Amino acid sequence: MNQQNLKLCSEIIDDKYIKIASNSLNAREKLFKLLLSQRQIPEEGFDDLTIEYLLNIFATMDTNNFVNKVGVGERESRIYSSLVQKRNYYMGHGIGRSGDLVASQPKAAGSSLIAKLTKHLAKDALKLSNYQINELLIVPVATGMALSLCLLTLKSLKPQAKYVLWPRIDQKTCLKCIQTANLIPIVIDTKIQDHVVTTNLEILIQKIHEIQPDNILCVLSTTSCFAPRIPDNIEEIAKICKQFSINHVVNNAYGIQCNKIANSINLGLAQGTVNLIVSSLDKNFMVPVGGALIYGNDKQLIKLISEIYPGRASAAPILDLFITFLSMGKQGYLKLQKERVENYQYFKEKLQIVTQKVSEQILDTHKNSISIGISLKNLKIDMNNLEEKNQATKLGAILYSKKVMGSRVITNKKNKVVCGIEFKNYGSNCDNYFTPYITVACALGITKQEIDTFIQEFEKAYTQNT
Amino acid sequence: MNQQNLKLCSEIIDDKYIKIASNSLNAREKLFKLLLSQRQIPEEGFDDLTIEYLLNIFATMDTNNFVNKVGVGERESRIYSSLVQKRNYYMGHGIGRSGDLVASQPKAAGSSLIAKLTKHLAKDALKLSNYQINELLIVPVATGMALSLCLLTLKSLKPQAKYVLWPRIDQKTCLKCIQTANLIPIVIDTKIQDHVVTTNLEILIQKIHEIQPDNILCVLSTTSCFAPRIPDNIEEIAKICKQFSINHVVNNAYGIQCNKIANSINLGLAQGTVNLIVSSLDKNFMVPVGGALIYGNDKQLIKLISEIYPGRASAAPILDLFITFLSMGKQGYLKLQKERVENYQYFKEKLQIVTQKVSEQILDTHKNSISIGISLKNLKIDMNNLEEKNQATKLGAILYSKKVMGSRVITNKKNKVVCGIEFKNYGSNCDNYFTPYITVACALGITKQEIDTFIQEFEKAYTQNT
Amino acid sequence: MNQQNLKLCSEIIDDKYIKIASNSLNAREKLFKLLLSQRQIPEEGFDDLTIEYLLNIFATMDTNNFVNKVGVGERESRIYSSLVQKRNYYMGHGIGRSGDLVASQPKAAGSSLIAKLTKHLAKDALKLSNYQINELLIVPVATGMALSLCLLTLKSLKPQAKYVLWPRIDQKTCLKCIQTANLIPIVIDTKIQDHVVTTNLEILIQKIHEIQPDNILCVLSTTSCFAPRIPDNIEEIAKICKQFSINHVVNNAYGIQCNKIANSINLGLAQGTVNLIVSSLDKNFMVPVGGALIYGNDKQLIKLISEIYPGRASAAPILDLFITFLSMGKQGYLKLQKERVENYQYFKEKLQIVTQKVSEQILDTHKNSISIGISLKNLKIDMNNLEEKNQATKLGAILYSKKVMGSRVITNKKNKVVCGIEFKNYGSNCDNYFTPYITVACALGITKQEIDTFIQEFEKAYTQNT
Amino acid sequence: MNQQNLKLCSEIIDDKYIKIASNSLNAREKLFKLLLSQRQIPEEGFDDLTIEYLLNIFATMDTNNFVNKVGVGERESRIYSSLVQKRNYYMGHGIGRSGDLVASQPKAAGSSLIAKLTKHLAKDALKLSNYQINELLIVPVATGMALSLCLLTLKSLKPQAKYVLWPRIDQKTCLKCIQTANLIPIVIDTKIQDHVVTTNLEILIQKIHEIQPDNILCVLSTTSCFAPRIPDNIEEIAKICKQFSINHVVNNAYGIQCNKIANSINLGLAQGTVNLIVSSLDKNFMVPVGGALIYGNDKQLIKLISEIYPGRASAAPILDLFITFLSMGKQGYLKLQKERVENYQYFKEKLQIVTQKVSEQILDTHKNSISIGISLKNLKIDMNNLEEKNQATKLGAILYSKKVMGSRVITNKKNKVVCGIEFKNYGSNCDNYFTPYITVACALGITKQEIDTFIQEFEKAYTQNT
Repeated sequence: MNQQNLKLCSEIIDDKYIKIASNSLNAREKLFKLLLSQRQIPEEGFDDLTIEYLLNIFATMDTNNFVNKVGVGERESRIYSSLVQKRNYYMGHGIGRSGDLVASQPKAAGSSLIAKLTKHLAKDALKLSNYQINELLIVPVATGMALSLCLLTLKSLKPQAKYVLWPRIDQKTCLKCIQTANLIPIVIDTKIQDHVVTTNLEILIQKIHEIQPDNILCVLSTTSCFAPRIPDNIEEIAKICKQFSINHVVNNAYGIQCNKIANSINLGLAQGTVNLIVSSLDKNFMVPVGGALIYGNDKQLIKLISEIYPGRASAAPILDLFITFLSMGKQGYLKLQKERVENYQYFKEKLQIVTQKVSEQILDTHKNSISIGISLKNLKIDMNNLEEKNQATKLGAILYSKKVMGSRVITNKKNKVVCGIEFKNYGSNCDNYFTPYITVACALGITKQEIDTFIQEFEKAYTQNT
Repeated sequence: MNQQNLKLCSEIIDDKYIKIASNSLNAREKLFKLLLSQRQIPEEGFDDLTIEYLLNIFATMDTNNFVNKVGVGERESRIYSSLVQKRNYYMGHGIGRSGDLVASQPKAAGSSLIAKLTKHLAKDALKLSNYQINELLIVPVATGMALSLCLLTLKSLKPQAKYVLWPRIDQKTCLKCIQTANLIPIVIDTKIQDHVVTTNLEILIQKIHEIQPDNILCVLSTTSCFAPRIPDNIEEIAKICKQFSINHVVNNAYGIQCNKIANSINLGLAQGTVNLIVSSLDKNFMVPVGGALIYGNDKQLIKLISEIYPGRASAAPILDLFITFLSMGKQGYLKLQKERVENYQYFKEKLQIVTQKVSEQILDTHKNSISIGISLKNLKIDMNNLEEKNQATKLGAILYSKKVMGSRVITNKKNKVVCGIEFKNYGSNCDNYFTPYITVACALGITKQEIDTFIQEFEKAYTQNT
Repeated sequence: MNQQNLKLCSEIIDDKYIKIASNSLNAREKLFKLLLSQRQIPEEGFDDLTIEYLLNIFATMDTNNFVNKVGVGERESRIYSSLVQKRNYYMGHGIGRSGDLVASQPKAAGSSLIAKLTKHLAKDALKLSNYQINELLIVPVATGMALSLCLLTLKSLKPQAKYVLWPRIDQKTCLKCIQTANLIPIVIDTKIQDHVVTTNLEILIQKIHEIQPDNILCVLSTTSCFAPRIPDNIEEIAKICKQFSINHVVNNAYGIQCNKIANSINLGLAQGTVNLIVSSLDKNFMVPVGGALIYGNDKQLIKLISEIYPGRASAAPILDLFITFLSMGKQGYLKLQKERVENYQYFKEKLQIVTQKVSEQILDTHKNSISIGISLKNLKIDMNNLEEKNQATKLGAILYSKKVMGSRVITNKKNKVVCGIEFKNYGSNCDNYFTPYITVACALGITKQEIDTFIQEFEKAYTQNT
Repeated sequence: MNQQNLKLCSEIIDDKYIKIASNSLNAREKLFKLLLSQRQIPEEGFDDLTIEYLLNIFATMDTNNFVNKVGVGERESRIYSSLVQKRNYYMGHGIGRSGDLVASQPKAAGSSLIAKLTKHLAKDALKLSNYQINELLIVPVATGMALSLCLLTLKSLKPQAKYVLWPRIDQKTCLKCIQTANLIPIVIDTKIQDHVVTTNLEILIQKIHEIQPDNILCVLSTTSCFAPRIPDNIEEIAKICKQFSINHVVNNAYGIQCNKIANSINLGLAQGTVNLIVSSLDKNFMVPVGGALIYGNDKQLIKLISEIYPGRASAAPILDLFITFLSMGKQGYLKLQKERVENYQYFKEKLQIVTQKVSEQILDTHKNSISIGISLKNLKIDMNNLEEKNQATKLGAILYSKKVMGSRVITNKKNKVVCGIEFKNYGSNCDNYFTPYITVACALGITKQEIDTFIQEFEKAYTQNT
């Protein structure tokens, strides 16, 4: 509300009330000024009113909301349903243009501002999480497709290279994103060290020699994995990539929430080659599935990805992220990360007690600071009658029936063909692990109450089952 | 968004997009300027985004939404539930102060502005509906309680007067509002003229003589009624009130939608005494139940009502009305009224045809231009076995089961005690009407489709039933 | 979603997913079952989705939302604006009928259920707050008007009684609600005991003798007041009322949040006469202004109030309360009250330190466990030049400019006429208090951060000012 | 609400009200039953309440909304901001799994049902628009990226083929989607016939011979274009593709709204080769930008695309589409298409009049039934001073300043390099057109008022400018 209108207000109600009220309006303008000038996550989170107010301003800046506008184009962002209008805050033009995913849209200044600002806020978030990178792209596709976009872009720069070296990680998407880009994955088997399943650098080097760097598009390493698999040794892989002049893409799906991984990636960036890092929006920032970050220090390369994206895209993942950053504030963001670390510690302590009770153990995989494995060595598994006699699997089923979501029981006995490649004991990230186990994750936003209930239900299910 | 912030925006995206966008923001400011300066219903309705934008601005002006505010009072409008916050657009201070229902609140400039503006818009609506009045009060209580407030206020000015003369109208609330104010109703029986049930002015005068003007607080007349009752003859009652120096309150519950009633009230105001008129918000403006208008030409008296109201009150009915006026615009408001008149005509034509078919007739009560009565003279009513043999009542039940809401079958046979007074044939507004009948109303917002379906269902139900 | 439809779902996606999902739907049904059968605030609060789901079910039960319904009544709850629809959760029929404010509406089963349930939940809330009452009415008017309704109802039962005995409390509404009902207030002056301003029972008894019980409608006592005024001695007043067979209405505006007051009222109910108690919804339950509770043990009397209310009323305050109770749960409700008590203690401790620093003192009024007074005896007040030289007033202004809301500086120097009665030193609840002071309240929902900031700003403002 | 709970309701309010109300609940269940069993767009659109009710049911079926659930996975769809929660209707799991974009998610039965149902509704929409196809995939990426996915999938089946034959169409995205897939576009220049710019089939055949079918991945034809370009001759291209056994992908961005294009594609499908057709969601169904349909008759191929998509994806575009289909109903959907055809006729008539006035003409390109070109042959274009003296460009600028969005002035004078290819007179779809012109589109949702204002503004701008 401009000065003139505020003056009109003060002809309607007492001038002195308007003065205080206009202070409040100005305080919002100051918040917006800070946001627009510093382009950082606000120190304290905005309240919902302030966020909606800002979104309404931005919506007003999109042409589809112009009063008395005449739309004679083929795409005027007319929205049929009022429910759809409201849930999209009256914005409909999406993001990007044919030339560039991050280009501003002439018809949608407000939407464009949100896209640009969210990029800045995301960079700030990475900085708060200790990532030493200087370029970033938000893509409105999830991690897998984002990785494919990275690979397609790298391929456009090195057209003859067909192979992607890929340290084994038993999550389908990690492999499929290679296939989507019409590239050929070369599996680098993991190795087992004590309890830990980890990167086999020797085989990696061996395969590079075998295939030859010129034919290799990149190494695709992974940091987010279920224990006892630990994050790939990014630092060493980066050094090897540098040595052989090979590209290196890091699948850092939900690693932003974890400081250890940040350090490992920073070392890789500093001492070796890390071209592109990809992270999920939903897992790191508590938004719905649908977007990913692509980041690193090679500005040219990241620009190329945004330019290679053909046409417009959904603004939804960016809008969710924008609202979330404003709502969290730096304080909220850091608090979440701190709580996660505390909860991880808490979870381990509780698991220590319960595993001792039932004579199992926590797998010693402290380098994985999100996922925890618990041995199930006392549970019977009859290989001839997996369905009936498998106590471990039953344990999983009981927990599931108690609304425990996301724990995974690994019995080490399933072979599987994924993307045309056969994997022994798929799910365990290695050919043969010494014990069946169950994994749990301590992800962002978990509560102590969930941990307590899990411990309770686990003990009950385990005891009933033996 | 102020100029400085817009400039910051133009450092983020292309300056020329910001220019167009700021035009759109300015266009909103112009709409707001018109609203704040003219204080009339906007010519064209605002879109929802503009309304929400304005509400957000007003919400920001309330102290409970101040950033970093310190609340050490006993009422700081803290709202617990985010659902409640959002549905109240983050406003919680209600309206009014202890001194005056329309006083601005120091803690709630935004809410106060909405209240003040809505009053102006409501005056504009009355003007558009041809009411020649110059003062108005919106009360956040429905018609009945609003009438009680009027009576209580009049009573404070004429403490010795205990009686309210009340032309019979068989709606409980009309009578109860007298009782609530601890006053004594004197029923003025209606008279029947041909098909019409109407005000018996002779008895009215007779009662005035009987009771004596000094003991009479007011006449409480009614314009909104079910056919064959027609609106009270406001003009003549007003003249009589003037002649005897008696107050006159008009219960104009849903009469704003009807021009004929406006004329009759205007004549009353011009040629006689009409102190206060009361109308429902929900029935005239398509908002939820909860508010009423009190209006007339006696500014002092209306001010007194607002001052007699003790303390704060809910802002909800006013907020609903504010949003609705902005959304309708003058064009929308007038269109609704025009459509109603057309639909009334359409309804009558359709009824003409169907009544002829079944040898019934439309009761000739054209002075009631909202409600229509249809005779049910061919349906059997066995007075000794009302439940079983009453075809008229059955007709109503059948219609109800077909989701026909709001039609009323009157068989003329029920006596009832209301507020301690016994009424013969309660529901028919008179002691004895010549035929059973069914009434329907053609109220604001009815659709042709509803009329068509009613005709269909009525014919079917009537035919099946005979 | 019924079983048949769930079966259809399981033809669309895997049956086993539907099974789990239907468990979740059943879990909701169980929550609803508990709510509908026990009619208590749920132990744990519902999430927003569950609340909206339930509201949608109720909305579907209102006739205005019937599919293919034909509305030929005069009030069909057609709602014009989609914003208004959504903010009212598609319900528009309000509450009550002409006969009774708590009667169910044939056209609005859903709205009626909400009204009925909310009454039960409110009774539960009072029980949780230790109120020993067995009847309750929620009225969609704020405390002042609710008190007027009580007085009007009592008046209908004792028509000749014109006087209301009213221990002085300097809040306008408390006095005005008497006037609204066309009754005559008799002020019972307070007395000062050490720091405390309290009920003068001697004068009360003296006035009863003077005016005579038959002429007295009731005593209207008050529990919610600014220190150094403490709550009226409800117990003793109740005994006096019983002794003289006088009605007793307690204005317990924001006392539900405080256990001490509950005890005092319980004692009054048990040992003396307390007919009706009135409390604000917004101040006790963190909802927007607009509703009040009327409660006590005289079921007949409370029923009479609901029957005397003429016609329908806004459902908004009830809907807000319903959502809030469901959202809080018992745990949330009790936590809020517990936190308030802790914050009161914390506030006092912090004030102790700061008052010592500036050589002032906390007024010793521990019987008021919501409001706290701090002496301002060192601040200069030049009686000849109140505007310029009044440091105390300036202190208030400085605090206000720092967004401190709700603190009140009392300099003891203003006379004022309210409702025709002149009060000496209006605002201080007594004719002459020994020192100027500032009051703050520790109300429900206050945060430690607000207290800390207040302490800081108070010290700064005080120091600058002297 | 199940029967048991309804029974409990009838202990709270009158049983007979509950009976009617439960009819309304049953009516909703019947609507849901029809939807779930027929899986078609409902005949009449649902009201917003019904849609929100259904969405709440589905949300309740997702595990993140389970009451007392324990989440120990890495992705539990915890959503931080309540604004984000609400705008996503409490759903966050997105769509798809690593194995398949259309696979149901064990953690999200509700979201999965929405995805599956929306696919059925979209098929129904295509059927209503006369498309004779039997398989369809909704992808949460816009047209360009959807085309890339098609090309990547085809490439995986014919790895050695590198070339895409592409009849020239001057929209960047159409070309870029080829590049994104690391394929090589071969431009097939258009030819001019009278006013029309159209497919040059001769050159197409010639290029096929030149490059050889084995090396050609597909022909990528386009139906949505600005006049005087008309849609590619799908029928003939399809025949040629069949003849040479070449794949054929149709970019049908906004052609669903147009019957002529449907016929042309149907002929192609019947008589030749059309493997995949891609259409935009926003332009055809009035939702925000972000999704596309991929459809055709090759079920295997379309399944492959859904399987090649790596991992999960945003559900936002599908949710918007689902709500919109339910809101429109078949009647609404067909009405929109009918109105568009009428508006196209109306637009042409109005343009006929105004072009005659100013001695220009409508370009005769009736085969393009969405876009219309108007000659600007009388406007001066000084080739040596394009900025200053170009009246045609100025016309565009004036219109833009009058809030006319989407009209394009083509002066035939710009060369441009796109994706490494130089185009003469880029924007005009051909090397040399005989006149400058302006194009307008008559797209879905345009209003007569917009057309009228355009005519007015065009005449004014043209006249001022000459």
